[in-house]
Amino acid sequence: MKIGIVGLGTVGEGVLKVLTNEKESIFEKSRADIEVKYACDLNINRDFSFDFDKSILTNDYKKILNDPEIKIIVELIGGETVAKQIIIEAFEAKKSVVTANKALIAKYGVELFQRAKQNGVSFLFEAAVGGGIPIVTPLMESLVANTVTEIRGIMNGTSNYILTKMKEDNLSFDEALKIASEKGYAEADPTYDVDGIDAGHKINILASLAYGGSIKFKDMQLSGIREISTVDIFSANQLNSTIKLIASSKLLSDTSAQISVEPSLIPNSEILAKVDDVYNAIETTGSYTDKTLFYGKGAGMDPTASAVVADIVKIVTRNHIESDYFFNSTKVFEIVDSNTVKDSYYIRVSDDFDIENSPFELINQIENYYIILANNISKNEINEILKDAKEKLILRVMK
Amino acid sequence: MKIGIVGLGTVGEGVLKVLTNEKESIFEKSRADIEVKYACDLNINRDFSFDFDKSILTNDYKKILNDPEIKIIVELIGGETVAKQIIIEAFEAKKSVVTANKALIAKYGVELFQRAKQNGVSFLFEAAVGGGIPIVTPLMESLVANTVTEIRGIMNGTSNYILTKMKEDNLSFDEALKIASEKGYAEADPTYDVDGIDAGHKINILASLAYGGSIKFKDMQLSGIREISTVDIFSANQLNSTIKLIASSKLLSDTSAQISVEPSLIPNSEILAKVDDVYNAIETTGSYTDKTLFYGKGAGMDPTASAVVADIVKIVTRNHIESDYFFNSTKVFEIVDSNTVKDSYYIRVSDDFDIENSPFELINQIENYYIILANNISKNEINEILKDAKEKLILRVMK
Repeated sequence: MKIGIVGLGTVGEGVLKVLTNEKESIFEKSRADIEVKYACDLNINRDFSFDFDKSILTNDYKKILNDPEIKIIVELIGGETVAKQIIIEAFEAKKSVVTANKALIAKYGVELFQRAKQNGVSFLFEAAVGGGIPIVTPLMESLVANTVTEIRGIMNGTSNYILTKMKEDNLSFDEALKIASEKGYAEADPTYDVDGIDAGHKINILASLAYGGSIKFKDMQLSGIREISTVDIFSANQLNSTIKLIASSKLLSDTSAQISVEPSLIPNSEILAKVDDVYNAIETTGSYTDKTLFYGKGAGMDPTASAVVADIVKIVTRNHIESDYFFNSTKVFEIVDSNTVKDSYYIRVSDDFDIENSPFELINQIENYYIILANNISKNEINEILKDAKEKLILRVMK
Repeated sequence: MKIGIVGLGTVGEGVLKVLTNEKESIFEKSRADIEVKYACDLNINRDFSFDFDKSILTNDYKKILNDPEIKIIVELIGGETVAKQIIIEAFEAKKSVVTANKALIAKYGVELFQRAKQNGVSFLFEAAVGGGIPIVTPLMESLVANTVTEIRGIMNGTSNYILTKMKEDNLSFDEALKIASEKGYAEADPTYDVDGIDAGHKINILASLAYGGSIKFKDMQLSGIREISTVDIFSANQLNSTIKLIASSKLLSDTSAQISVEPSLIPNSEILAKVDDVYNAIETTGSYTDKTLFYGKGAGMDPTASAVVADIVKIVTRNHIESDYFFNSTKVFEIVDSNTVKDSYYIRVSDDFDIENSPFELINQIENYYIILANNISKNEINEILKDAKEKLILRVMK
């Protein structure tokens, strides 16, 4: 089957490399015969790290759209405007699409799947969540017998690398971020990664898939790791816990879910507490399987390319991929405000707070802060009690 | 599609329960319309934990084989004689087969896959490895772009439960085995579980799949956990490690692999060290993904049924499942004797051993034993040095 790749950035180049170098082994394993007929990018006059037939390079994606031999377009340009347009045009040209574009799926999944279905083509996105970790296909196919009610995990490698460095080397957020940037793990503007937006896209996609509906991305509560200090890392450790940026979703009823991204304390006995550096891990709770966890590299050229190629093989080897259940627009889940949910919380509050006349019990006093553990209380209730304090941080404590 | 289940033990009953209770949700998610037309067992006059149409019960499996409406037979009787016969008869009647029978696949995979291919039917066995953990399909499909060179993991829940109890409650092997039996985790004859045979079947299957050939089960080196004592658990802990029964496989060349099941010391920083109780975890190293790990419940009615049902859905929703790569009989991998491989080892040897005139350095002395760590040496070489010692135990130290 002939395919075209649009976008030769890190992931696009990786996909071209895998399809070039592994053509025979992929055929041997799956009987999928995949030929890259076009590889499109604005800048095609550059060096590549591997050999391939340069005549496939083009800077005109319309050539791919108009070629009836092309059955699959691999969209890897990223962003939300041109990418969306190309995907829609591909569907209208009756071509299936494989993408790694998490923002696009999280925001426009309903519309895009409707358009794919109308045109009778497939739309796959394994690489959008968890990079090289197989999660979308296992969730939808291997766990098909289960009602998956809870999903939680570490879905952003950059913020996990920063938190790991802060803990291991006793660094501040800014110091750890600097190292992450130097290593190429953080972008010039790290907002998407460290403020929970990227992880938010991913948990939105997984929850939508698991629950068979959609969740409005703009209604989700996202918080990041900028406010985490070495005092918090130290205090968590004293509580036999580790702070991780956790994306989580819990089905509450047929029509509502609690879904958020927030730094949380994970007991060190949990596997999630052991997921370090740029690794990701996603834990699902199914009605029959109970907990299953998927761990691996959540980003990078090679792991992400591996996931994109698996989707291409899936389309080539199957006649039709049923996706009626994906982003079913008729069902929109209401997001329950997690600030109103009673849970356990870690609190760091400046010592101007009048702790003696509060319901809280002090567990530690470090620098100018009180450290408190509060149970069976909501974030809103805590905020009300702490309203006059100069500085405060509230983190969920996971069980 | 109409199917028949043969064998209504724990897993068979679980599959019938899932297909009865989740018929609609499975259809909603996958468009697979699955009807159990027959459920066969020698004893059908017993109580079941859920409601279903009892008219599907039969004690004559020939009825299922002879019914042209039946497209899939689910073999869940276990064992290696009748089960094998039924699977072969099913293939000859042009019916696909789904099984959880690991011993059968590990020993007769080559023959059975050849017969399935000759008859143009599918033969799937996700539940044979890792129970409810999706591993066979992710390995073959999600990781299709990768050469998976290394696989290692905790693949037997019973022995992992025993090792966990020994560590947590400071129990001897016999005491922990007794508790496992009382909890229903260990069979009357625990040989398969505690002597590494069950884990051996599983690593044999995974390595055969990953390498695209077959590995002779009878040539594999299997050792179990009977000789592990509280002294070893304690010493491992002092070395910041945990003893786990590790099934592992490493591709050494195009034609050879190192494959074994043996209790090993895993550094506590590794996720595998955190896999406790009856949980299983399987780590694969792929050429593009690097490490990915799959964790979950490796046994039990519900998790195993979940995996069996996923295979049934796979057959129903796809026209044809390519399995040329499965147990390809033309390629038989030679097993390299792991006793000859230089590695790091933990040694417990009785104190009659003349340690002063040996190349070993003592790291601890507990009760009547010397505890030694030896690097860059083979098990055969260690055994030669220890040949006169009264008692000894040698465990691989993993990195």
